[in-house]
Amino acid sequence: MERQPEPAIITLTTDFGLADHYAGAMKGVLLSRCRGARIVDISHEIPPFSIAAGAYTISQAAPYFPAGTIHVVVVDPGVGTTRRAIVVEANNQLFIAPDNGVLTLITATDSNAIAREITNRALWLASPSQTFHGRDIFAPVAGALASGSARPEDTGPVLREVGQLRGLYPDQLDEATWRGTVLSIDHFGNVITNFRSSAFPHLADGALVLETGGRRISEFRSTFGDAPEDLCFAYSGSGGYIELGINQGSAAAFLGVRPGQSVTLRVTIV
Amino acid sequence: MERQPEPAIITLTTDFGLADHYAGAMKGVLLSRCRGARIVDISHEIPPFSIAAGAYTISQAAPYFPAGTIHVVVVDPGVGTTRRAIVVEANNQLFIAPDNGVLTLITATDSNAIAREITNRALWLASPSQTFHGRDIFAPVAGALASGSARPEDTGPVLREVGQLRGLYPDQLDEATWRGTVLSIDHFGNVITNFRSSAFPHLADGALVLETGGRRISEFRSTFGDAPEDLCFAYSGSGGYIELGINQGSAAAFLGVRPGQSVTLRVTIV
Amino acid sequence: MERQPEPAIITLTTDFGLADHYAGAMKGVLLSRCRGARIVDISHEIPPFSIAAGAYTISQAAPYFPAGTIHVVVVDPGVGTTRRAIVVEANNQLFIAPDNGVLTLITATDSNAIAREITNRALWLASPSQTFHGRDIFAPVAGALASGSARPEDTGPVLREVGQLRGLYPDQLDEATWRGTVLSIDHFGNVITNFRSSAFPHLADGALVLETGGRRISEFRSTFGDAPEDLCFAYSGSGGYIELGINQGSAAAFLGVRPGQSVTLRVTIV
Repeated sequence: MERQPEPAIITLTTDFGLADHYAGAMKGVLLSRCRGARIVDISHEIPPFSIAAGAYTISQAAPYFPAGTIHVVVVDPGVGTTRRAIVVEANNQLFIAPDNGVLTLITATDSNAIAREITNRALWLASPSQTFHGRDIFAPVAGALASGSARPEDTGPVLREVGQLRGLYPDQLDEATWRGTVLSIDHFGNVITNFRSSAFPHLADGALVLETGGRRISEFRSTFGDAPEDLCFAYSGSGGYIELGINQGSAAAFLGVRPGQSVTLRVTIV
Repeated sequence: MERQPEPAIITLTTDFGLADHYAGAMKGVLLSRCRGARIVDISHEIPPFSIAAGAYTISQAAPYFPAGTIHVVVVDPGVGTTRRAIVVEANNQLFIAPDNGVLTLITATDSNAIAREITNRALWLASPSQTFHGRDIFAPVAGALASGSARPEDTGPVLREVGQLRGLYPDQLDEATWRGTVLSIDHFGNVITNFRSSAFPHLADGALVLETGGRRISEFRSTFGDAPEDLCFAYSGSGGYIELGINQGSAAAFLGVRPGQSVTLRVTIV
Repeated sequence: MERQPEPAIITLTTDFGLADHYAGAMKGVLLSRCRGARIVDISHEIPPFSIAAGAYTISQAAPYFPAGTIHVVVVDPGVGTTRRAIVVEANNQLFIAPDNGVLTLITATDSNAIAREITNRALWLASPSQTFHGRDIFAPVAGALASGSARPEDTGPVLREVGQLRGLYPDQLDEATWRGTVLSIDHFGNVITNFRSSAFPHLADGALVLETGGRRISEFRSTFGDAPEDLCFAYSGSGGYIELGINQGSAAAFLGVRPGQSVTLRVTIV
């Protein structure tokens, strides 16, 4: 990967929340190692310990950043245990994370991705804690890579395999039926499924039927303003997945669903 | 408008919340178009779809930014419909928003404001989605303007009129009585009315009486620490409006009021 | 203190929340005074008016920032009253805050700290409000210091003493017993006590017993992943204090404790 032009860009995606000093301390370490870095918060409100939500979130944001961007992703229920810390080069960007599957949707998009275990303790803070590797390992490594004082190959040995999260892709049950899940509920209550819109090109009323939370949705709309305010409809979401929404309302509340819940999709017209 | 000196400053005001990737993806687009930009979050917690809250918030923050700042305001219940996207030059700053009235309190402060419809699709992301114009239209246009690769006149034709939000100004009912509304409830529970302090110069105990939520407030204080902790009082707020507060307590909870609720003001001493 | 290299770094720690324009307006003032400044949010979700939480938060974040960083801390229930505004030079950084004890844990770490009262109104915004000194006094002073247009000695006279917050340190009750408090509950529900881990080196099962919320905790673990998911245990936290946690659960909810609540520590093996 080529050196990125100045200024370096570093993004943060964590489940640390915004009330505590945790994200702030990470930023202090990053700026101590790379004073000119532009630090961008993707989210610090990943649901605590939800590796799937972290995987979805970084996969939706990373493609919009320039080549050379360094993404730090810390959803890390195994902090301080023997789980590995990794640096992954993929799509001309760098990803720094615990090796727990949180990069599953990133590595899936680049068959030439290179992963390394972060074993070079010279890049860590001295005397790292056992409970805050975001500050003590991930941030200083990111800062060193951002400043150019270390290259990815300086972080540690190449890994043949990294952790993969299961359940992120739908299963085909028969010729016309798939079982997927709710990937995410967004701030507006829209329900993001894990069915790729591009895999189901006939997005018209009645062509597909989705079932979740005990309800069937068969109406499609292009956007919210095209629907009456009490209709739960499916649409092709901005992230490439089929989503369920209600104009100025919460489809999640209407359907009573949560992330991880099952969704069935049936193709009714081919 | 003159080119702004480096670095360009871009602010974001949205109802996207902070948990999802939405604001992060916008920042990726902005930095892809203008790598040196300083991106400043005004708020991503505008109440969903509340154009009035967005209008109030940007009007309170923008005046404190330097000339040349580019403000992106996305509270956009009509995304994907025929509502227009606009760029407004006002007060030596640029504002990029849907044309739904969210800039009402900005255009009101500059009689020479120039508005343009964003019709130049060459400035958008390729294949824009129907549900996320913040990422696909507003951010790339802002980035192009920030980098200097496009000028406001490149975005599209001048508009004679832009959408105006109603109900933002008080009505005078008789010589001594006005009917206004609650513009905002802040994080502390302070109630911001839409009565300009400067229009009611006699801010002393008993000179004005405000009524809302079934209660009358006639006591004025200069600041919170001047009031006992159980007194709901009026004061001249930092944003130029008359506010209602309780020292270290929530006036909104005490009064039981919400944004948009009616407030009556009576001048009792002239 | 030496001039800091470019770019200047300014951090913000407030109880303003993230929904309103308050932090955004401060950033506008900062960038108007020092266009190149890097602004870093530590937290805007300090519990309203909680000086102790602000003191803890800035003390945990500041040490990770480079020399020369300017920290603005605004938890300010006395805004607009006669409480002083101060600039403190400590540990080669600058701290700007109301003089209400919010810097207690900063000044405690540098016996050569120099505090000044901010009396030079030429550095403030013109016509400051009585209720928003973050925007009108603290931010413009920070911006002037960051740009180098003012030095700390230009802000006002040196103070011999600054406000100190009480109750931040444990009391020793007898040879083997201390009474401390809950300093903070973090986003995950971990309970941060004010017992320094370094003062109690024998952190092994049964060597110490902590009591709070009517329960006794005597088990120690190195990190979360070492504990079964229903065990409340003590550990040496990343901030230097003894903390109480539950693996992927909330110790605070289990114990029913809040910040400020009493914690007793007994040494059982010496």
